[in-house]
Amino acid sequence: MADPLRTIEIDDPADPRLADYRDLRDVELRKHLESEHGLFLAEGEKVVRRALEAGHRARSFLMAPRWLDGLRDVVEPSGAPCYVLPEPLIEEVTGFHVHRGALASLHRRPLPPVEDVLEGARSVLVLEDLVDHTNVGAVFRSGAALGFDAVLLAPRCADPLYRRSVKVGMGAVFTTPWTRVPDWYDALPDLSHRGFTTVALTLSPDSVPIEDAVAGVDRLALVLGSEGHGLSARWESAADRRAIIPMRAGIDSLNVAAATAVACYAAARR
Amino acid sequence: MADPLRTIEIDDPADPRLADYRDLRDVELRKHLESEHGLFLAEGEKVVRRALEAGHRARSFLMAPRWLDGLRDVVEPSGAPCYVLPEPLIEEVTGFHVHRGALASLHRRPLPPVEDVLEGARSVLVLEDLVDHTNVGAVFRSGAALGFDAVLLAPRCADPLYRRSVKVGMGAVFTTPWTRVPDWYDALPDLSHRGFTTVALTLSPDSVPIEDAVAGVDRLALVLGSEGHGLSARWESAADRRAIIPMRAGIDSLNVAAATAVACYAAARR
Repeated sequence: MADPLRTIEIDDPADPRLADYRDLRDVELRKHLESEHGLFLAEGEKVVRRALEAGHRARSFLMAPRWLDGLRDVVEPSGAPCYVLPEPLIEEVTGFHVHRGALASLHRRPLPPVEDVLEGARSVLVLEDLVDHTNVGAVFRSGAALGFDAVLLAPRCADPLYRRSVKVGMGAVFTTPWTRVPDWYDALPDLSHRGFTTVALTLSPDSVPIEDAVAGVDRLALVLGSEGHGLSARWESAADRRAIIPMRAGIDSLNVAAATAVACYAAARR
Repeated sequence: MADPLRTIEIDDPADPRLADYRDLRDVELRKHLESEHGLFLAEGEKVVRRALEAGHRARSFLMAPRWLDGLRDVVEPSGAPCYVLPEPLIEEVTGFHVHRGALASLHRRPLPPVEDVLEGARSVLVLEDLVDHTNVGAVFRSGAALGFDAVLLAPRCADPLYRRSVKVGMGAVFTTPWTRVPDWYDALPDLSHRGFTTVALTLSPDSVPIEDAVAGVDRLALVLGSEGHGLSARWESAADRRAIIPMRAGIDSLNVAAATAVACYAAARR
């Protein structure tokens, strides 16, 4: 009986069919490769499964033999080729040890318009220039867990479909509607016009505790700035309200992922 | 005039005086090396400074020339040798690109007894078997920012003085009193005897929302389990109370660092 899977055993790590999976640690190379070919990668059985269940089409799969059975039910109907390599060769292709053994290369879809993403949303996260993929993934995950319905990204925010974002976010980027705002300058006033109260997390003289800032707000847009510099002056002043998380005085502060989780928690209880 | 700094220029990355700084990415090797020699590393100007200000004695420093001036005021009085290498050679020694250019090797001190760490503390974090250094660092940082006074670690919890923990924690491990509990089995009953209410974050059938669990508690010990399996059955049942962070039903959950931040925030407002 023929194998119903399109499995293709490969023993040469230089095989051109593996181009989608090259040098996963080389962030700059990956950025070009992924945007030019309209692809992104999912890593690990759970995340690969979520990407497919969310309707992303697979270009191909890459895995060690032992991962095949666990993913057969999603790989098979996808119709995409499944390249099977021994683990040491996968490491040679990707440039690192793939812990969870399975990778998928998937087609990017055109980003939806802002109005589609906001349709029916009551709680929205708005990220200005988060540059760290780990933080972007963590923000998506916390937002999804704590009841946020959508995410908007400023034009320079890091890519939520980058492998590391997807992995840290445990696939929340597939289940949470998101897009980029086309107009950085007027992004927040535009949200206000659409009926959202924009609350910026920032250390401004008129910032109030987050719990007070979100109290009584129906449609909420929680606005977060970059890891290093925080929000731009434009976004800070354009927000309807400014909020802080009360912290102990001194040298300590929360990192952006922790601050986001706390702010989402406070917002979820408004 | 003689240089008041004990700077020693080195041009051979194999120089034995650099032994403390070898192969920083090799976790297993580093664990042995650091415990056997009683040392730990601090990375980056801010963190090096905090380690010294917290009273840790330096064994030596390693930095590129351009970092020397910024740290002169703490390096000089330390009396420890300061090895100066061009950045590419530092990379050869350590095995990675040291972003913030300055490293210090410091003496570990004997861990204090539990009673010293708990002295005067009102809010304590208790970590069972967190195995990830990044998470341990993040927990220290969130705890410090949100008003926790001390941290206790189970015997198998990852080392908070490991370079990665120290870095992610932004040096909170230097300012927050911490130690290991000597007796895993009776760690939580022992805290109860000392007058703490132990609240375990866990998905147990009798878990209540974190806010309710900490309400009215004076001396609080917030208990966190490992990233993968959560708390052991022993610790889960030995805690005075069990608590959850209310989340949206479905596939999404918070990671341990985000959950800790939320729980600390809720606890800080009790």
